Amino acid sequence: MHYPKGIKKTKDKNIYYGNRGMDLESDINNSNEYYRIIDKAIIYKKPIPIQINRVDYPSRYEAKIVEAYYKVPSTTDYNGIYRGKYIDFEAKETKNTNSFPLANIHEHQVKHIESIIRHGGIGFIIVSFSNLSKIFILKGEDLINFIKTNKRKSIPIKYFIDNGYLLNYKFQPRIDYLEGIDELYKEKFK
Amino acid sequence: MHYPKGIKKTKDKNIYYGNRGMDLESDINNSNEYYRIIDKAIIYKKPIPIQINRVDYPSRYEAKIVEAYYKVPSTTDYNGIYRGKYIDFEAKETKNTNSFPLANIHEHQVKHIESIIRHGGIGFIIVSFSNLSKIFILKGEDLINFIKTNKRKSIPIKYFIDNGYLLNYKFQPRIDYLEGIDELYKEKFK
Repeated sequence: MHYPKGIKKTKDKNIYYGNRGMDLESDINNSNEYYRIIDKAIIYKKPIPIQINRVDYPSRYEAKIVEAYYKVPSTTDYNGIYRGKYIDFEAKETKNTNSFPLANIHEHQVKHIESIIRHGGIGFIIVSFSNLSKIFILKGEDLINFIKTNKRKSIPIKYFIDNGYLLNYKFQPRIDYLEGIDELYKEKFK
Repeated sequence: MHYPKGIKKTKDKNIYYGNRGMDLESDINNSNEYYRIIDKAIIYKKPIPIQINRVDYPSRYEAKIVEAYYKVPSTTDYNGIYRGKYIDFEAKETKNTNSFPLANIHEHQVKHIESIIRHGGIGFIIVSFSNLSKIFILKGEDLINFIKTNKRKSIPIKYFIDNGYLLNYKFQPRIDYLEGIDELYKEKFK
């Protein structure tokens, strides 16, 4: 069973429930909301897929789900439209300080990003090295190229420095990843 | 409380649980799967948004949702990429035989479709008149134009006949709506 980001098995109420993964997610959600408000892009996080097994009806107009389970997502978490282009990405966090473990991304998510690129869309990942306070965008093309040409199970941070785009925290939007998209995909927007 | 399509309050097991709304949805899902297999388009239905209130952990690796509720979706049900373009739509069913009640579509969904069009994407609705066995595509532009120039609370079927695209059932894909998209958006694909 995979737990979605931010959902931790714990009964201790003192433990910080929304973990660092949740922080990246809420920063991206806030940024997307800001982009929508200023009408720069229409990008949303997809809801977490849930397998619903049993629903109760306490009243005529109320449906209460009483048995359900998390499902593994078949695609990436975020998609939408920016400057007329289809945008699709996954956001991941690691506490590692020297590399990003590929186990964090499902194989079918990599295949999905590959399909998006083949169909003319913009597919990428956002990776936060939380203990370094560094967030990178890595183009799907570079992610796939690394996987195909390496046997390593994690991507060294140097690969992100050399190929990716380092994002800075801002007041608004919190993570201005579209600035990185403008830069990394200059050719596509010409 | 809004029930998502196909979820009916009933304790009678003889009642057909997956209703006609569910049929349209599964026909579109099947068509999308077919489009992905032949690599024609990458389009998915978004998961139903759920508000999760309580999760139990029967074992170390199992998370069981025991209290959750359906949320009203903030966007449309389907999106993806086709011929390099961002595609976004909502699918609705009516048992009416002469018009489509606008109450079937949330106002924020219409606004979402309007945003998508403004950003250069393709936004539309698929409406099934189930008792007539007729399914139409209506461009978002025509939907919005109707709403802005009419005070009527439903769109007459004649409006679909005059402005939309009538889809035929096929063996595969069950509903070949991309054929309609090719036709309705000829200019955009030039």
